[in-house]
Amino acid sequence: MFLKNAWYVAAWSHEIEHTLAQRWIAGEPIVIYRTEGGRVVALEDRCPHRRAALSLGRLIGDSIECGYHGVTLDCSGACVKIPGQELIPKTMKARSYRVVEKWQWVWVWLGDPDQADEALIPDFRWNSEPGWTYTGGSIDVKANYQLLTDNLLDLTHETYVHAKTIGNQAVIETPAITSVVGNEVHVKRIMSNTKPPPLFAKVRGTDSPIDRWQVIRYQTPANIAIDARGYPAGSEDMSQALRWFSINSITPIDDKTSRYYWTITRCFALDDQALTELIHKSILATFMEDVVVIEAQQLRMQTDHPDKHEVGIAADAGALGARRILERLIREEALASSAST
Amino acid sequence: MFLKNAWYVAAWSHEIEHTLAQRWIAGEPIVIYRTEGGRVVALEDRCPHRRAALSLGRLIGDSIECGYHGVTLDCSGACVKIPGQELIPKTMKARSYRVVEKWQWVWVWLGDPDQADEALIPDFRWNSEPGWTYTGGSIDVKANYQLLTDNLLDLTHETYVHAKTIGNQAVIETPAITSVVGNEVHVKRIMSNTKPPPLFAKVRGTDSPIDRWQVIRYQTPANIAIDARGYPAGSEDMSQALRWFSINSITPIDDKTSRYYWTITRCFALDDQALTELIHKSILATFMEDVVVIEAQQLRMQTDHPDKHEVGIAADAGALGARRILERLIREEALASSAST
Amino acid sequence: MFLKNAWYVAAWSHEIEHTLAQRWIAGEPIVIYRTEGGRVVALEDRCPHRRAALSLGRLIGDSIECGYHGVTLDCSGACVKIPGQELIPKTMKARSYRVVEKWQWVWVWLGDPDQADEALIPDFRWNSEPGWTYTGGSIDVKANYQLLTDNLLDLTHETYVHAKTIGNQAVIETPAITSVVGNEVHVKRIMSNTKPPPLFAKVRGTDSPIDRWQVIRYQTPANIAIDARGYPAGSEDMSQALRWFSINSITPIDDKTSRYYWTITRCFALDDQALTELIHKSILATFMEDVVVIEAQQLRMQTDHPDKHEVGIAADAGALGARRILERLIREEALASSAST
Repeated sequence: MFLKNAWYVAAWSHEIEHTLAQRWIAGEPIVIYRTEGGRVVALEDRCPHRRAALSLGRLIGDSIECGYHGVTLDCSGACVKIPGQELIPKTMKARSYRVVEKWQWVWVWLGDPDQADEALIPDFRWNSEPGWTYTGGSIDVKANYQLLTDNLLDLTHETYVHAKTIGNQAVIETPAITSVVGNEVHVKRIMSNTKPPPLFAKVRGTDSPIDRWQVIRYQTPANIAIDARGYPAGSEDMSQALRWFSINSITPIDDKTSRYYWTITRCFALDDQALTELIHKSILATFMEDVVVIEAQQLRMQTDHPDKHEVGIAADAGALGARRILERLIREEALASSAST
Repeated sequence: MFLKNAWYVAAWSHEIEHTLAQRWIAGEPIVIYRTEGGRVVALEDRCPHRRAALSLGRLIGDSIECGYHGVTLDCSGACVKIPGQELIPKTMKARSYRVVEKWQWVWVWLGDPDQADEALIPDFRWNSEPGWTYTGGSIDVKANYQLLTDNLLDLTHETYVHAKTIGNQAVIETPAITSVVGNEVHVKRIMSNTKPPPLFAKVRGTDSPIDRWQVIRYQTPANIAIDARGYPAGSEDMSQALRWFSINSITPIDDKTSRYYWTITRCFALDDQALTELIHKSILATFMEDVVVIEAQQLRMQTDHPDKHEVGIAADAGALGARRILERLIREEALASSAST
Repeated sequence: MFLKNAWYVAAWSHEIEHTLAQRWIAGEPIVIYRTEGGRVVALEDRCPHRRAALSLGRLIGDSIECGYHGVTLDCSGACVKIPGQELIPKTMKARSYRVVEKWQWVWVWLGDPDQADEALIPDFRWNSEPGWTYTGGSIDVKANYQLLTDNLLDLTHETYVHAKTIGNQAVIETPAITSVVGNEVHVKRIMSNTKPPPLFAKVRGTDSPIDRWQVIRYQTPANIAIDARGYPAGSEDMSQALRWFSINSITPIDDKTSRYYWTITRCFALDDQALTELIHKSILATFMEDVVVIEAQQLRMQTDHPDKHEVGIAADAGALGARRILERLIREEALASSAST
C-alpha cells in the first residue's frame, strides 16, 4: 500500500527538459516534461482514448499529441484536439499531477491535487543551499521502498555492511536516541572520541580520533536526511570538521521495485572535484552493498510462510516508528476516501 | 477470451514440411506436419500418455512416435502403438484439428471439427491470384491480438505513427465511412487529389497528386484485407496506379502474445525484385512502429485500475464494430457450449 | 506438495566448507556450512530479526553473524548476541535442520527434527564403497521433481530418448517386473542375449551380445538406485561384465524447479581415468536429453486445462507406484500435523 497524498521524487530536475520522459510511481505510469516557459508538467502516461503511452507521442508547444491517433492534450491534461471531429467529450482528459521542483528534484503529488501541500515536501535544503555542494544519483532496487527506509533509520548496519567505508565498531557500540515528533522520526547518535571510519579518514586525511554525529530525520513517506559530522575529538571546530548531509528519498515504482534518489551534500572543500569524485564513488559502492542485502530480504518477504514474523530489537526503534506513522496515514487516507464516496 | 469455432493462421504453407513443427494458438500447443502425400496435419502437441511434447518425437511415415516412451499416433490422433502392450485404451488419443491450406497459409480450426466451415476462411485471394505477387512475413507481438485488429481498422494512426512511409495529413483529414455487413466490418476512405505519402511517391517514382483509396474489410476473428490504391489524381487509370492489398491475419498465441501474419500483394511491376524488397523493408519497418505503440498499450491494460475506461471517438467506429461482432460470437459460442452439456 | 519428514540432498559433501553456502529446498532458504570441527550445519537462511539472508553474513568461529545488523546465531540457531542490547528474546532464533553426511552427499531433514531417522537415508553405499569408483554431478531442471522420478522408474524411455547411449530396442521389447515393497518400488528388467546399447559397446570395447540387467530401487521421496549390468551373453561372469549403479536423488527447489544429483559408480577398471571421463560425458549428455523432454512436460502441466488427464500404460507401473506411496505419506504427514495442533 502507498500513501497517495504525498510527494514523491519523480526525477532529478536536470533530467526533465522540453521533451517527454516516462516514469512509473507507485504503479502509475506518468509522463513528465518541461514547458517552453520552464515549468514541469506531469500527466498520466496513458491516452484517455485507447491507452496509448503519451510518452511515445510528441510535444507541440506545451501540449502532447498522442503518437497513435493524434488526440492532443494540453498541460492540464485537457483535450484540445481530436483529429477528424469537432466534439470533444468531457471525459477525454488525462489525469494531471501537482508538481513542485525543489532541492534539485521534481516532486509529484500522487493524490488529490486539492490537498497538495508544499509544506509536506521534506526539508532537503542542503541540496541547494549556498555554501554547500552535492553529488548524487539514483539507483533502481528490486525491493519494496520501506526496506530502504528501514535501512536508513537503523545505522547500526553500517558496522556490518559498510566496514569498508562508513561503518566501524563505534556505531554499533553507541546507543541512539529515537524520538517521534508529529509525523517525523528523529534518531540521534553521538560517538565521542572515536576512531573515524575508513571513508572519514580518507576524506579528512587523518585517522586521529573524532566526535562523530549522526542525526537522522525521517519525513513521510520515505524521506531521510542524515546530518553527519566528524569533529576533531573534544572540539566542535567546524573549520576542521567533516560535515555532510546524506539526503535520501525513495520512490516506489511498484510494491516490489523502488528508485532510490540520494545525495551527499557537504559544506567544506567545495571546489575540490577529486574529493567530490571520491565521495561519489565511495557512497555509491556503499549503497550497492545495501542493495544486495535488501533484495535478499525482499525475496524472503515473498517466499516466507505468512506465519513467519520478525523479532524486534532496540535498534529497530526508528524504523518501526516510521512504519507506524506511515501505516496510520495510509489508514486515515483510506477512511477519508471511503467517507467521501 | 477466444472464439474457438474459427480459423486461425498456424503457419505459412512453405514453413510446413514432412517434419514436426510447433505452434501455440490461443493457449493450445499444436504440432503440425505435412504427410508424405502432402496434406497438412495438426494435432494437440501433447502425448495423451504423460503430456510429453509430441513435436519432440519423430515421424514414422505419417504417424508421430512420441519421443519419450514411443506411444505412436496416426494423423487422426488415434493411437496405433503402445510399446510393450497389445491393449490400446480408447482414451489414448490426441485431439486432431481441422486444417485447410489456402492463400499461402495453413489455417487451423480451433473448435468443434464438425462445425468447421471452409466458407469462413477470409477472402485473401490476392495472395494467390494470377497477376499478383506478394511479399510478407510474420511478427511476434507482446500484446493481445485485438489491439492489432483495432490498429488496422483505424488507419488515422498512419498520420501519427507512419509519417515516414504510408501516413500523411490527408489520412487524418479525410473521414472514413464505416458499415457493418453481417459479421464483417467495412471501412472506406477516399482521399481525392492529395499528396502521396512517402512510400507511395517512392514506389511510383513521382509525388504528383493522387486519388488514394483505403478499403478495409474485416472478417472474424482477426482478418483484415485493405485494398490500397493510388491513382493519378482525377483518373482511375489503373495502368498508372499503385495498387496493392495489405492482407493481415492475427493469431493469438495466448491472451498477451500474438503472431501477426502479413503480406503486401500487388498487381503491377510483378517482376521487379528491387521493388519487392523496397516494399518488404518499408512495410516491415512500418509495422514495427505499430508494435512499439501496441506493446505499451498492452502494458497499460495490465496495470490500469479496473475502473479506468477508454473514451471513444468517431475514428473508432470500425474497431468498435469489429469488437462487438467478436464479443457476440464468443458469447453465442459459450451459450451453445453450455446448452450442449 | 512436499514430504517434509524426509531427507533431501542439499549438496555434495565436497561443496561444503567452513564458509557459508546457500540452497533452496522445497521452497525454504537454507544456509549450510561446515564447523571448525568438521560437522555440517544447516539453518534457515533468514535472520529472525529482519529476514536478511544469513548466508550474506560471516562465520565467527562456528556462529553466523548476520551481515545486516550483527545478530549472531550459534550452530543450533540460538541467538548468542544482539549488538547494542543485553536482552535476547526467546523468539530470536533460526530454525535448525538435522543434517547427515553420507554417500558423498549432505542430507537435510526438512521436517520435525525429533522424527529425523537416519535409517530413511536411501541405500546409496556404492558411492562410497571400497572397490567402487564414481563420477557424477548435479543438474538444475525447470520441472517438478516428480517428473524426474517418473523418468527414472520407466526406463522404456531409453529406447526413444537415449538411442545414442544407453537405449536400444531390447529395452522396450523386454517387459519389466514391478513390485511394491513397503515404501519402496522395485522394477526389474532382464534382457537376455541382446545387442549392447552404444555406450555399453564403447565401454566394453565390443558389441558382442550381452545379458543386460536393470534393477531399479525407489526410496522416498525421490531416490533411485539402478543396478545396471551387462554380462557376456549366457554367463554371469562378473570379470567380463560392465556393472555400475546409477544413483539418483532429486531435490525439489520449489514445485517447478529441481536439482538433480547423480552418480555413475562402477566396480571395474577403477583407475581408468579416460573411462571415467567417457562415462561422465556420455551420461551427462544422456540426462540433458531427458531435461528437454521433461521441461516441455512441465510447461504442459502448467498450461493444460484442469480437465485434461493422463492415460496410463503398463510401463507406468513403477512411476505410478512411487507416486501413490509418496501421496500417502504426504497425506499422513498432513493428518499428523493437524492432529498435533
